Amino acid sequence: MIGTIESIFRQISATMPDESFALRLWDGSERHYGPGAPRFTLTFTDESGVLDVVRRAQLGFGEAYVRGDLDVEGDFQLLLRFAFEEPVRQMHLGTQDKLRLVRSLLRDRKNNVMRARKNVAHHYDLGNDFYELWLDRTMTYSCAYWDEGCGEIEQAQEAKYEHICRKLELEPGERLVDIGCGWGGMLEYAAKYHGISGIGYTLSQEQYEFAQDRFAREGLEDMVEVRLQDYREARGKFDKFVSIGMFEHVGKEYFDTFFAKTRELLVPGGTGVLHTIGRDRENEIDPWVKKYIFPGGYLPSLGQLASGMGKTELCVTDVENLRLHYARTLDEWAKRFERHRERICRELGEHFYRMWRLYLHGSAVAFKWGEIRLFQITFTNGLRQDLPMTRAHLYN
Amino acid sequence: MIGTIESIFRQISATMPDESFALRLWDGSERHYGPGAPRFTLTFTDESGVLDVVRRAQLGFGEAYVRGDLDVEGDFQLLLRFAFEEPVRQMHLGTQDKLRLVRSLLRDRKNNVMRARKNVAHHYDLGNDFYELWLDRTMTYSCAYWDEGCGEIEQAQEAKYEHICRKLELEPGERLVDIGCGWGGMLEYAAKYHGISGIGYTLSQEQYEFAQDRFAREGLEDMVEVRLQDYREARGKFDKFVSIGMFEHVGKEYFDTFFAKTRELLVPGGTGVLHTIGRDRENEIDPWVKKYIFPGGYLPSLGQLASGMGKTELCVTDVENLRLHYARTLDEWAKRFERHRERICRELGEHFYRMWRLYLHGSAVAFKWGEIRLFQITFTNGLRQDLPMTRAHLYN
Repeated sequence: MIGTIESIFRQISATMPDESFALRLWDGSERHYGPGAPRFTLTFTDESGVLDVVRRAQLGFGEAYVRGDLDVEGDFQLLLRFAFEEPVRQMHLGTQDKLRLVRSLLRDRKNNVMRARKNVAHHYDLGNDFYELWLDRTMTYSCAYWDEGCGEIEQAQEAKYEHICRKLELEPGERLVDIGCGWGGMLEYAAKYHGISGIGYTLSQEQYEFAQDRFAREGLEDMVEVRLQDYREARGKFDKFVSIGMFEHVGKEYFDTFFAKTRELLVPGGTGVLHTIGRDRENEIDPWVKKYIFPGGYLPSLGQLASGMGKTELCVTDVENLRLHYARTLDEWAKRFERHRERICRELGEHFYRMWRLYLHGSAVAFKWGEIRLFQITFTNGLRQDLPMTRAHLYN
Repeated sequence: MIGTIESIFRQISATMPDESFALRLWDGSERHYGPGAPRFTLTFTDESGVLDVVRRAQLGFGEAYVRGDLDVEGDFQLLLRFAFEEPVRQMHLGTQDKLRLVRSLLRDRKNNVMRARKNVAHHYDLGNDFYELWLDRTMTYSCAYWDEGCGEIEQAQEAKYEHICRKLELEPGERLVDIGCGWGGMLEYAAKYHGISGIGYTLSQEQYEFAQDRFAREGLEDMVEVRLQDYREARGKFDKFVSIGMFEHVGKEYFDTFFAKTRELLVPGGTGVLHTIGRDRENEIDPWVKKYIFPGGYLPSLGQLASGMGKTELCVTDVENLRLHYARTLDEWAKRFERHRERICRELGEHFYRMWRLYLHGSAVAFKWGEIRLFQITFTNGLRQDLPMTRAHLYN
């Protein structure tokens, strides 16, 4: 079995001749690849880790890493990047895992209000304390916008809000709906700096309470409110629409429902921004991420997004791909997360820490070298004749 | 039969209560709709025009207009806008026209090199004299970019070239391929102002000769050349790729071929811009336009473009919708075209003049009120790690 891993490392080393890395086994023996000091050492503390990786590909790797049957010292992301190299792409899940995956995909076809609530709770109700540890002060858990001069993540998150506000051409007094409003960062920013009023929707109890407190603390209760409801339950008419990092949870069986609701919420000619992780071509989400991090998650291709919006008479005016911005955001989160290793291990357990560490670094690597993208799509509900002729207003 | 037209006018008048217009029959009788002086008068000089419109919808209207069985004084575009109002949308082609349309769609499935050449000749080999009459000095027959301060179409066409050059991040010495290079405007601009070298492909003999002369006259023969070849015959490797207003002729059966060729022509990580008319959702081209103006034409939906590019590992980084820019460009062309009415009628015939007048105004109206869009799509061949983080460089 270890022969398979060695062969993969040899093949990858041949395609990355400048990189050095090492493999260490439970008996202390080591193999070195490449010309210099290893940038990482992958240690198998047990033969079962090897079996897991060889037989169950990325799912086995993830589970073995979380259990501690394998460990990585040094540049974790260089190892994770191997997932996008040919010899690893050719590895397959075992039959059992495949069956389990098919069952979970079938389950997703019923991403109804109840299941959506449960899926959201799985991820977002880990506790505000947990997210406050490593998110920045704005409590924003989505891709930042690293505009020139944004040294800190907090600035980059506010730059993201500003960028979206400009794409929405927000005017004081306008009504904005935020589907998947998280801890309320977007609504706070838009109310404070652009004078809008609006409603945010979240399914997370923890986020709901946080956003309520936040709006009260900032004296914005008369302008913005948050509701603990599913997007399908949203009502009313708004001048502007925004959804940031929520579409990933909708599920492809519900794309049409989401877009029909978007159209219903917007006045004719109203403008919206959909900010979502996506991909260039259709594919399922990584099975390890789906099982442990985002149950019910599905990442749309740009083609699926454009077709779905076109069918619903949502007219796309602008698409920006912020792939490298999410990679940098995730690098920043991983760094901040790792700084709190001790406390997270103590309060949530070592397995949890390792699971989230893998998720954060794995996602960064997937934006850098893999198949995932971040699309910011600006659209109008039907045609709008007074659109700005150029996008220069985003950059002044 | 005239009752049907009157009923449609009454219904549209009810949805546009501020607009006034009139209908005049061959016996001199008139009906007025709306509160004031008519913005246009539609005159049927013959009952056969009425029959054509009622039985054969947009195809019948176009043919009757070209023959002169109907005429329009005043605001032509207001009348053409009726095509996007409900009562007219419900009109259908007759059985004969439908059959003819199906046959032409089947024919398009073979948009091979020979047919492509014939289709191109139909439109672009009308004679350089003809296009020189009403295009601007840059001889650009595609959507201009009406940047702030572009008063004249010539400036707006150069602004378009500059906008695309910035999207391509052209650097002196780079190699650029231009698929469907027309009369050579893009290559001339990119060579002169950005120091690239490159090759343009066209299937039009007239364009080929014009571009050759142009490059010689400007002393650019050592940098850029034009070839009278199909895109499928293009060879070589280029740093950058551009295609402006040519994809409309590819045909949906050949999208994959086009994108595979695009990938083949670009170095890994090379950047391209695809500038094409498109739509929000899949549909066939207007049957009158297809029959008389663009045989073999098909306008892609954004979904089809994104899916096709994604499949081929062309990674979309930016999409800009320039719908209103094309409307303004067409308004400008129509005005310039009409200025030469006498000469065009004399040299190419009254029918030709009316056909093209309908095509130019009809297209303007379809961008303003109908289903067509202009997409500028920036993409890279595979992932590129040194992308600019923002699009600010397009606007400095």
